[in-house]
Amino acid sequence: MSSSSVLERFRPLFYPESIAVVGASDNPSKLGFQSLAAARSGFRGAVYPVNPGAAGEIQGLSAYRSLADVPGRLDLVVYAVPEPLVAPAVREAAARGARAGVIFAGGFREVGGKGAGRQRELVEIANAAGMQLIGPNCIGVVNTKVKLNATFAAPMSWFPAGSLSVVSQSGGVGSAVATQMADEAVGLSKFVSIGNRANVDFADMLAYLAEDDDTGVVALFVEGIDEGRGFLKAAAACAARKPVVVCSRGHTEKASRTALSHTGSAASSERVYAGALRQAGCVRVGSLEDLVCTAKAMTMAAHLGGNGCFISTHTAGPAIIIAEILERGGVRLPELEPALAAEIAAFIPEHARAGNPLDLFAHAWTDGSLYVRATDIALRQPNIHCAVAVYISSMGAGPAFPLAEYAEVARRHGKPVFLCLIAPGMAMQELAAAQQAGVVTFNTPEKAGHALVGLTRWVQGRRPAGVGA
Amino acid sequence: MSSSSVLERFRPLFYPESIAVVGASDNPSKLGFQSLAAARSGFRGAVYPVNPGAAGEIQGLSAYRSLADVPGRLDLVVYAVPEPLVAPAVREAAARGARAGVIFAGGFREVGGKGAGRQRELVEIANAAGMQLIGPNCIGVVNTKVKLNATFAAPMSWFPAGSLSVVSQSGGVGSAVATQMADEAVGLSKFVSIGNRANVDFADMLAYLAEDDDTGVVALFVEGIDEGRGFLKAAAACAARKPVVVCSRGHTEKASRTALSHTGSAASSERVYAGALRQAGCVRVGSLEDLVCTAKAMTMAAHLGGNGCFISTHTAGPAIIIAEILERGGVRLPELEPALAAEIAAFIPEHARAGNPLDLFAHAWTDGSLYVRATDIALRQPNIHCAVAVYISSMGAGPAFPLAEYAEVARRHGKPVFLCLIAPGMAMQELAAAQQAGVVTFNTPEKAGHALVGLTRWVQGRRPAGVGA
Repeated sequence: MSSSSVLERFRPLFYPESIAVVGASDNPSKLGFQSLAAARSGFRGAVYPVNPGAAGEIQGLSAYRSLADVPGRLDLVVYAVPEPLVAPAVREAAARGARAGVIFAGGFREVGGKGAGRQRELVEIANAAGMQLIGPNCIGVVNTKVKLNATFAAPMSWFPAGSLSVVSQSGGVGSAVATQMADEAVGLSKFVSIGNRANVDFADMLAYLAEDDDTGVVALFVEGIDEGRGFLKAAAACAARKPVVVCSRGHTEKASRTALSHTGSAASSERVYAGALRQAGCVRVGSLEDLVCTAKAMTMAAHLGGNGCFISTHTAGPAIIIAEILERGGVRLPELEPALAAEIAAFIPEHARAGNPLDLFAHAWTDGSLYVRATDIALRQPNIHCAVAVYISSMGAGPAFPLAEYAEVARRHGKPVFLCLIAPGMAMQELAAAQQAGVVTFNTPEKAGHALVGLTRWVQGRRPAGVGA
Repeated sequence: MSSSSVLERFRPLFYPESIAVVGASDNPSKLGFQSLAAARSGFRGAVYPVNPGAAGEIQGLSAYRSLADVPGRLDLVVYAVPEPLVAPAVREAAARGARAGVIFAGGFREVGGKGAGRQRELVEIANAAGMQLIGPNCIGVVNTKVKLNATFAAPMSWFPAGSLSVVSQSGGVGSAVATQMADEAVGLSKFVSIGNRANVDFADMLAYLAEDDDTGVVALFVEGIDEGRGFLKAAAACAARKPVVVCSRGHTEKASRTALSHTGSAASSERVYAGALRQAGCVRVGSLEDLVCTAKAMTMAAHLGGNGCFISTHTAGPAIIIAEILERGGVRLPELEPALAAEIAAFIPEHARAGNPLDLFAHAWTDGSLYVRATDIALRQPNIHCAVAVYISSMGAGPAFPLAEYAEVARRHGKPVFLCLIAPGMAMQELAAAQQAGVVTFNTPEKAGHALVGLTRWVQGRRPAGVGA
């Protein structure tokens, strides 16, 4: 599929001119209430509540008894109705010329037997009409660029815009990922919960996101793949253009049985996944936390030039944790060149060794400029491509880390810098401020370590071996 | 050492009648300012600022020019002075009859050479005087029971009291652990950063905490062990009485070199640690997050009766993640007995299967009572010893989880219940409320899974094989 055709194919889904919500309601206990509230909470285009029982208005908007009655162009239809009402509504939408749909209801392929038949029926209607269906059994779609919120969670409309796009088979995990993104202060581009994958699967979304200029990094949560070859081909094509991070689950017996009764796909063996994903150029991670943190590092620090890292700290313990994760993940901590080590040795505290990691003792806690001076020198070394600083605010009692100066050093050298800032209940504000300054910030050593390992793997994978090492 | 003698030996450290702060200052950029502020911020006993330049008062307290001038009994001395001033002050303290000390300064064994000699000198003075020295090169000691805060972080004085005691070699990691404990709403009993371990090592703290009635669970962060046999003996003795969770680091080359220049101990191989700790009955975990979360589960759910778990959810994805971690960690998800499955089948949504995990679909999101009813039935099954519920608040848009009713089910059955409550920036308030109700609560599936695995390992380890399984 050509670049323009895949963008065009999904334009009605991600950039609709209008949204109709079937099942829209004034009753807050109904999914149709939440769905309409979400659809209208930020979107600037037309929003049409549709309900057979509608009389006049729903949530203050002109309401319609059927999709056939909706005036003007119809792009995206959100189906906030139970399973028996879905197929008739999809049929109406097809007749009305709608080209995209989001179906929340379960009761399809994931329940087996007749459910699978019901899903096939949807696919036939949609395919005949050239309509893209997300779901069924999903929580929908978000595009922060146009404040599209085709989910049933209105707060998603206020998600900060960014360059990370998320595709999750499970709506629940997608929601968990969004939650962790909010806590990590990482902005969102597109969010897609694809559920049962009626006629839109991972491969389709990967093809679209590869072309989408607003997407810089793609994060996937995968439970099972039906068309393994198509998926891997699309993943490889996407990963050749931008980072693709993958967390896969459902590899044990009970877990896979749950996956089967979930979005209707058999889970595959972990080793098969891991090998194939690596071959496709994707970075595989082991937890949702690592998915979000690695993707965050990729959105902020894709200009990383190689696998050499410099660590400075005022306290050895957390630096040891990071160093261990880095070394095991293939990130090197090069010794400082003698001339640079001598420059550093000239101003660091007595007893400190001008090494890497560099332990500046408590002196750096009271005088943050030590971090800045040391990092400025270390980043001159060609085989050091980034820096990590560890700073503990000791339950908020400590002086502040010299954020602006540290970020300025990064800019001057054109090399990314990371901060492991350990503070209780680190407010999004503090984290966001650090990141706005250009410092990739995490609140645990493990997050920082694993994120940098994932980023480095991607950086190493996309260039000939040896270069930049 | 008898029970009463180890308690007596460390009474001046953990339950001092008075604290003297050597180096106390009115200058907020001095460690002696922070240290005095911490010492007096909650403690009810006498606090004596000591500084050779003192004239009258420091921070509004009567100040003394030397320890010899301090009136009344002297228990604990906090040394907030640089390395050259430490030994003379410790000598004065010994002469004055002080029986415990905390030394923040570095420049001792961790720098090798002469530093090792300086540390030996301290040990000689302390041993001759029967004085217990914490550090040097540490961040001190907290005992929430008497609001003792012998650190340089005043906010530690307001740490909620609880039954978890933490011993960390690294002060920085101890601080990171405390930070995560605050975010996890888990209360603290004793906090000890032992640093260079002059004459108080892990084995001493384990012997003390084993006897300490206010300590229910012990969490250790270990970088290197000098006296492996003594440590393991003390760990085994402590683990026979209460759970001991251990995170060890410093096993790779760079990391171990940093450890060496840190608290002056060579790091050992990971496998040796792991095997020995398991034999000693400790639970070993792989990250600080797992250390805190596993310890939290142990403080709240030590009455767990075996390794069978029931999971209910409104969304399969996160339940799959938990199920996979549990299965890999040896926690079973028994099939429901036919009679109980039939009871559950009678009220769950169409298409739902009365299995374990139990997926209640979006119905349970709008009607939380489904969780309560299903868990109430499942916990009647003898080989099900606990329950986990997964609930996503969809960026805060969802109805509330039925916390009180869920906790009441747990109480009635005498079996612990867990909640994986996924919500953005989950406030301590919300988490604390859930836990006050008796529900062990985590905000990611991975935390919940790993914590339950660790807890189960401990429960399985302390009883004859087969019992309760």
